[in-house]
Amino acid sequence: MYVVKSPLPEDDLKTVSEALQGALVDLVDLSLVAKQIHWNVVGPRFRSIHLQLDEVVASARLHSDEVAERASALGVPSDGRAPTVASGTGITVPPAGWIKDTDAVSGMVAALGSVIGRMRERVKATGDADPVSEDLFIQITGDLEKHHWMFQAESA
Amino acid sequence: MYVVKSPLPEDDLKTVSEALQGALVDLVDLSLVAKQIHWNVVGPRFRSIHLQLDEVVASARLHSDEVAERASALGVPSDGRAPTVASGTGITVPPAGWIKDTDAVSGMVAALGSVIGRMRERVKATGDADPVSEDLFIQITGDLEKHHWMFQAESA
Amino acid sequence: MYVVKSPLPEDDLKTVSEALQGALVDLVDLSLVAKQIHWNVVGPRFRSIHLQLDEVVASARLHSDEVAERASALGVPSDGRAPTVASGTGITVPPAGWIKDTDAVSGMVAALGSVIGRMRERVKATGDADPVSEDLFIQITGDLEKHHWMFQAESA
Amino acid sequence: MYVVKSPLPEDDLKTVSEALQGALVDLVDLSLVAKQIHWNVVGPRFRSIHLQLDEVVASARLHSDEVAERASALGVPSDGRAPTVASGTGITVPPAGWIKDTDAVSGMVAALGSVIGRMRERVKATGDADPVSEDLFIQITGDLEKHHWMFQAESA
Amino acid sequence: MYVVKSPLPEDDLKTVSEALQGALVDLVDLSLVAKQIHWNVVGPRFRSIHLQLDEVVASARLHSDEVAERASALGVPSDGRAPTVASGTGITVPPAGWIKDTDAVSGMVAALGSVIGRMRERVKATGDADPVSEDLFIQITGDLEKHHWMFQAESA
Amino acid sequence: MYVVKSPLPEDDLKTVSEALQGALVDLVDLSLVAKQIHWNVVGPRFRSIHLQLDEVVASARLHSDEVAERASALGVPSDGRAPTVASGTGITVPPAGWIKDTDAVSGMVAALGSVIGRMRERVKATGDADPVSEDLFIQITGDLEKHHWMFQAESA
Amino acid sequence: MYVVKSPLPEDDLKTVSEALQGALVDLVDLSLVAKQIHWNVVGPRFRSIHLQLDEVVASARLHSDEVAERASALGVPSDGRAPTVASGTGITVPPAGWIKDTDAVSGMVAALGSVIGRMRERVKATGDADPVSEDLFIQITGDLEKHHWMFQAESA
Amino acid sequence: MYVVKSPLPEDDLKTVSEALQGALVDLVDLSLVAKQIHWNVVGPRFRSIHLQLDEVVASARLHSDEVAERASALGVPSDGRAPTVASGTGITVPPAGWIKDTDAVSGMVAALGSVIGRMRERVKATGDADPVSEDLFIQITGDLEKHHWMFQAESA
Amino acid sequence: MYVVKSPLPEDDLKTVSEALQGALVDLVDLSLVAKQIHWNVVGPRFRSIHLQLDEVVASARLHSDEVAERASALGVPSDGRAPTVASGTGITVPPAGWIKDTDAVSGMVAALGSVIGRMRERVKATGDADPVSEDLFIQITGDLEKHHWMFQAESA
Amino acid sequence: MYVVKSPLPEDDLKTVSEALQGALVDLVDLSLVAKQIHWNVVGPRFRSIHLQLDEVVASARLHSDEVAERASALGVPSDGRAPTVASGTGITVPPAGWIKDTDAVSGMVAALGSVIGRMRERVKATGDADPVSEDLFIQITGDLEKHHWMFQAESA
Amino acid sequence: MYVVKSPLPEDDLKTVSEALQGALVDLVDLSLVAKQIHWNVVGPRFRSIHLQLDEVVASARLHSDEVAERASALGVPSDGRAPTVASGTGITVPPAGWIKDTDAVSGMVAALGSVIGRMRERVKATGDADPVSEDLFIQITGDLEKHHWMFQAESA
Amino acid sequence: MYVVKSPLPEDDLKTVSEALQGALVDLVDLSLVAKQIHWNVVGPRFRSIHLQLDEVVASARLHSDEVAERASALGVPSDGRAPTVASGTGITVPPAGWIKDTDAVSGMVAALGSVIGRMRERVKATGDADPVSEDLFIQITGDLEKHHWMFQAESA
Repeated sequence: MYVVKSPLPEDDLKTVSEALQGALVDLVDLSLVAKQIHWNVVGPRFRSIHLQLDEVVASARLHSDEVAERASALGVPSDGRAPTVASGTGITVPPAGWIKDTDAVSGMVAALGSVIGRMRERVKATGDADPVSEDLFIQITGDLEKHHWMFQAESA
Repeated sequence: MYVVKSPLPEDDLKTVSEALQGALVDLVDLSLVAKQIHWNVVGPRFRSIHLQLDEVVASARLHSDEVAERASALGVPSDGRAPTVASGTGITVPPAGWIKDTDAVSGMVAALGSVIGRMRERVKATGDADPVSEDLFIQITGDLEKHHWMFQAESA
Repeated sequence: MYVVKSPLPEDDLKTVSEALQGALVDLVDLSLVAKQIHWNVVGPRFRSIHLQLDEVVASARLHSDEVAERASALGVPSDGRAPTVASGTGITVPPAGWIKDTDAVSGMVAALGSVIGRMRERVKATGDADPVSEDLFIQITGDLEKHHWMFQAESA
Repeated sequence: MYVVKSPLPEDDLKTVSEALQGALVDLVDLSLVAKQIHWNVVGPRFRSIHLQLDEVVASARLHSDEVAERASALGVPSDGRAPTVASGTGITVPPAGWIKDTDAVSGMVAALGSVIGRMRERVKATGDADPVSEDLFIQITGDLEKHHWMFQAESA
Repeated sequence: MYVVKSPLPEDDLKTVSEALQGALVDLVDLSLVAKQIHWNVVGPRFRSIHLQLDEVVASARLHSDEVAERASALGVPSDGRAPTVASGTGITVPPAGWIKDTDAVSGMVAALGSVIGRMRERVKATGDADPVSEDLFIQITGDLEKHHWMFQAESA
Repeated sequence: MYVVKSPLPEDDLKTVSEALQGALVDLVDLSLVAKQIHWNVVGPRFRSIHLQLDEVVASARLHSDEVAERASALGVPSDGRAPTVASGTGITVPPAGWIKDTDAVSGMVAALGSVIGRMRERVKATGDADPVSEDLFIQITGDLEKHHWMFQAESA
Repeated sequence: MYVVKSPLPEDDLKTVSEALQGALVDLVDLSLVAKQIHWNVVGPRFRSIHLQLDEVVASARLHSDEVAERASALGVPSDGRAPTVASGTGITVPPAGWIKDTDAVSGMVAALGSVIGRMRERVKATGDADPVSEDLFIQITGDLEKHHWMFQAESA
Repeated sequence: MYVVKSPLPEDDLKTVSEALQGALVDLVDLSLVAKQIHWNVVGPRFRSIHLQLDEVVASARLHSDEVAERASALGVPSDGRAPTVASGTGITVPPAGWIKDTDAVSGMVAALGSVIGRMRERVKATGDADPVSEDLFIQITGDLEKHHWMFQAESA
Repeated sequence: MYVVKSPLPEDDLKTVSEALQGALVDLVDLSLVAKQIHWNVVGPRFRSIHLQLDEVVASARLHSDEVAERASALGVPSDGRAPTVASGTGITVPPAGWIKDTDAVSGMVAALGSVIGRMRERVKATGDADPVSEDLFIQITGDLEKHHWMFQAESA
Repeated sequence: MYVVKSPLPEDDLKTVSEALQGALVDLVDLSLVAKQIHWNVVGPRFRSIHLQLDEVVASARLHSDEVAERASALGVPSDGRAPTVASGTGITVPPAGWIKDTDAVSGMVAALGSVIGRMRERVKATGDADPVSEDLFIQITGDLEKHHWMFQAESA
Repeated sequence: MYVVKSPLPEDDLKTVSEALQGALVDLVDLSLVAKQIHWNVVGPRFRSIHLQLDEVVASARLHSDEVAERASALGVPSDGRAPTVASGTGITVPPAGWIKDTDAVSGMVAALGSVIGRMRERVKATGDADPVSEDLFIQITGDLEKHHWMFQAESA
Repeated sequence: MYVVKSPLPEDDLKTVSEALQGALVDLVDLSLVAKQIHWNVVGPRFRSIHLQLDEVVASARLHSDEVAERASALGVPSDGRAPTVASGTGITVPPAGWIKDTDAVSGMVAALGSVIGRMRERVKATGDADPVSEDLFIQITGDLEKHHWMFQAESA
């Protein structure tokens, strides 16, 4: 079914839409992982980390919406369904059950680090094909790196 | 690891925590399904349904948080990870790609109907064991049935 | 015309929908009666009662909306038209013309008392059939009894 | 019981107070009719019309308050009780039960058209007697005609 | 010193500017009188009247600003200085010292009644010369008559 | 294509719709002219005038919307397209390039003076035919004359 | 002195009013105890616990108001005076002087646990007599158990 | 346990900390007494006094927080526990049960008068030792005397 | 008529109440003078001074209310009536008619300078008798001196 | 007249300023065209499109302001006057009179598509000369493509 | 260049202006030091201290503005330039690079302690010369001592 | 001490961190210089420039925070201490004492021009190494150039 006409030529569109779909899966899963830890973290720093994680959730939800709506604007439908997220995410599944606050922090350092690595590749991959999508990936990368610093600082 | 002491005896706790874990999975998936359609719906009623779906997302996110934190308050960790959601949800996976507005509406009627059915069973199952959780399920049921009516009204 | 499928079996639905329709008529009329006195009250306590009545109006309008939309969610259309309200209300028609502040207070004590009595019966009638509607009637009863206390306190 | 002294001479007062009482009844009924359809409308345009009707309700409630308080300021008590509204309104009673969205729109075009016609006569009738009331009727007319246009535009 | 060019011919301007200057003096004094009673009222209804008077003050300050800026827009400077207000006001000077709440109410009925009487004459006087100023006087009259009703209602 | 039924008879409608269409063109152009100077003004008073002009833009945009929607309410479509504005406006085209602050002020005095003159004629022309439109023109005139005074005051 | 007529029969009223009075004393003391620790807590987690305690204070104050006003609505005066609270509370008096952060957390776990235990009994005791009060106790219990979880999580 | 180093020498600290501890007890009890009357007042002036008392509660809570945190800043822990308040307050315990509105007003005049008398002595006692605490007592005194005037005015 | 009992002995009360009454008259007149210039200022700096003067008006109105209510709290009624202000103010009556912006600035420097001088004397006069009133005068002086600096800076 | 010194060399400035002037004209016209359809659209989807168009207007007005102020920051005056817009726009003039909702949607798809095409060229043209302007064009393009998608989705 | 006339005699002015200039330098440096640690703190308590330090920054910025504007009001220009702050501050320069959270807390205890000591001397030095400045120093001292307590509490 | 792991390779990190540290020093000093002039400016345009400078301060504070937190996110601590700012800034130290408004404007033109020049070099230097930092510098440059234009416009 033809729906939305893309402003990009075929080749560029393929490059950019793969990057957007990959980013969407990473960001939806980041929101699920951060919520999982938000609910299950325990330890003396519980309250601080519980609140901090909801800020990661807010970032991840905002950016996943921007990414999916950017794909629509380029004429490509998105896929953020649970099985797609479960199979396609680049984040290691966190353990079930209560999580000690120190493990929560190191887990978030790892999860963010993994998403950031792939997001920086998307910046490089899309610069020529679509500067609008590149700009979106740059802003998301900057935001995630800020969260990454804060969890690392807490591990020092 | 012992963490949070439950105010409920063992048996009641088992009943209630199963109901809460089931509700959590349904609600997280409801938020993913509603976002999926929010991004991909097309047709003359696009804008109206696009906005309406974000209200479902907001309800589902709020209630999933309430349910998971209620489990924590009862001394039971929650599981809202992507693979758990993908395998445990009671909602049929929506189709990939663009979705006609009429299909979006009928899809939401089905998805909500399915979650409501199980939620009403949870109300019955938990009334004796924990009136606090029962009260939470009653409020969630009422809210979902309101969304359900609105999508049905649009199918008339 | 079939429109919205009810989550309740036939018998329960009959019980609950009669309770909701009765409550709707009472609440719409309560908002009209409170406005009538809001406009026409006179006496040294005019300002205090004038303001207090608008809080009753706000409660009555909010609850009438909740009740009617609950009926829709159960698959039953509501009837809040003027002739239905005029003939079905449980509140005695207030007198025309200016109303002394002491009469305004005693009139509201009577009007609220009458609605509360019927609302408590609805709580009892609907508990088995639909806990969602029962919960709504409980909350409305609690709110009306708070207003009832305040007008009684002013009669002391 | 003498209460509030009128700034108008006897004859003018009679003209103006009849116009205000008539407007009050029309506006209270308009709020009831719009709510009735708000609850019972069904069809593909459900959500849009459901929201639009609440804007009519807000207008009608605001203006009925302005009209009744204007009567008080002129020394005349108002009558907005259910039987008075049921017997005195100029709006045809809407049908009971679910209402198709197309019928909802045409019903509102008719209801608003009927109130606007009488309101324009009130503008003419009160101009000499009381410019303050005339000004109020002019503003109400302009507001209702804006709603009237919008429902007509949707019938095109 | 010539400053702002009037959109009105000489004769109309004279009529309108006298009306505006008279209204300004009345409204500034109304704000001073209402504050005087706001500070000095005593009696069982102290709190209610104390608050009610600040609403009169807010109205009087708002309208005095509108009136003076309307005069400027017509090219005529305004005079709201204390000696001009003291000598030109149409409101009887209230007594010094504490004021019983019943006297506060009757005093406000008299003060408002006196200003309203003159304001209605200004509506009549300016209609032909400047409909913009006439409209402003109509709105001020309506607002003051609302306050007037409320204090009268409290005397009933 | 018949769309919206007018509440006015043919002759009155012609008079009023011409006045509304003329006002729309003037107000849209006033917003463009004020923005043009807002961007290009220079001189020691830059900041004050830059801010003041955005208040004129806000007024002009608000009133153009009110005027066009009033036309719709009377059953007449509006024309606010660029060529219509360019050819039909009563405001002299401002010069291109940077504008000294003193020239900006005198330019706005002239532009506002020109629009006000025509707007006062529209008040007179429409009073008999449609008091609602007349009332709208009166309010717009009052608002524009306030801006006019302020720029004149700055030229003193 | 007879003041407010109860909607409950004598026996039910006795049961419910004892539960409400007991809850009031517990909640007022909970607000005093949480403030006491809020002021005197010291240790590395000072800031986090200082802020967290003010959220407990806010909950306790809100719920004590709801409980006392529910008693009034049932026709029973409340007693929240200092000696009544000091002698009737179910919370152990906290120690005077500075409190280490770890002791603050364990002290709050104990205080909340003690109040929750009694509140759950009140839910059971009042369900038959007054569902409105029961519903209030259920909501308070849910809220206190959420605070309880958080302090326990910090002890892990 | 040494915790916070005081900026004051030993003697001054003793003087100031006794004054702060005394003020804390008075202010906490003032909040309890005002709430007690807020819940139990009856009579024609119920609503006005009910609202007015919540403003006293807000003042007393705010000031008790300022006083206790000032003690902490001086290196002295505070004691606001129920038994300390019950035994140390300077306010006479109010009677149990419903309170007539006239008695509520005279009771608040007495309670505030009693606290104000001691607060003025604290202003005198602490001026030399710590101008920061003196300034705090001055502001509290001014605020309480404003409430005191209002209740006296209502007794006139 | 005895109304409000003063917390001050007779002699101190006389000193303080004279200072408060003098301050009230100065502040009410400052608000009238600043409004007078706000309406009538012309010249290139019109907009800046027009806005700045409304900030002086806001300060003067706020402080006059604080001063009059402080007098009431001390048991002394205030006098802010127009003739009292006209005869008792320490500010020279500003000239009638349009005021050049440079004259507006120098006029405000003079008016504020005159009020500040007397306010500093009131600080000295009341320190021993009533530190609460002294503190109020100190804050008012600081606020007026800030306005004074700004107008002086504009004269440089 | 030399006014603002550009941070760019002559050649780069020429390139960038032409792109900015072109974008300004497109964006101003987009706001006029979207308002034109906002006022004149009719058909069953009237309300939804009427609201959606005001969001396009808000985007277009915001971006036209950013573009013109960017030109000023580069030392180049802008030209957004009606004749310049009428002759320079890249959008086809919409038809006069009422517009069917389907035509409104397709008209907006065309108008946005046309502006987006030229905006993408501006991104390419300015990247080397001025990354600040390039970044602005990228953000505007992304925003317009989001609106473009939504109208296309409604045509599906 | 003479600019603002001081309300103080020469000698008093010298005393007060030296105190204000010293306070300004301390407060500007406090804001820079707190920001430095805000950016560079690491350790498990990172988030809590990061947020707490921004509250110190807000206090320091607010008070530096009050102090500098108080100097202007006394006719004395202020000096808050970087070299003046670097050479005149009473706070020890914090170390470069990452700062452990425990060192951050002890560093802030020392920095605040040093500023508080000098601020208390300024309170003493200025009381006779200018009670307005004294009052400002008292409020700043109270605010800084509150921050000081909190960092000390975290060191316990 | 190893703390935060950089996402950049060694060489790129060196380039980017030097640019960020340089930008931090410039921006902190810009905030100090703008505040210095904000406090000391005099002349007829005092108020306008006083307010305008606080907008520069807000920009400079916001951007210095973004820059320092970007450095942290890259694993590099920042240095914003007073001696570092005093010795490293690229802005000429402004003169001490009162500043004429014309000098204030030309001083800000120079200060902003100097910072913008270096910021544009940072955009160029960092584009290859880190597009996130480049994007931040682009946005800061655009914002500073907007302020720069406004002060230049005031010099025209």
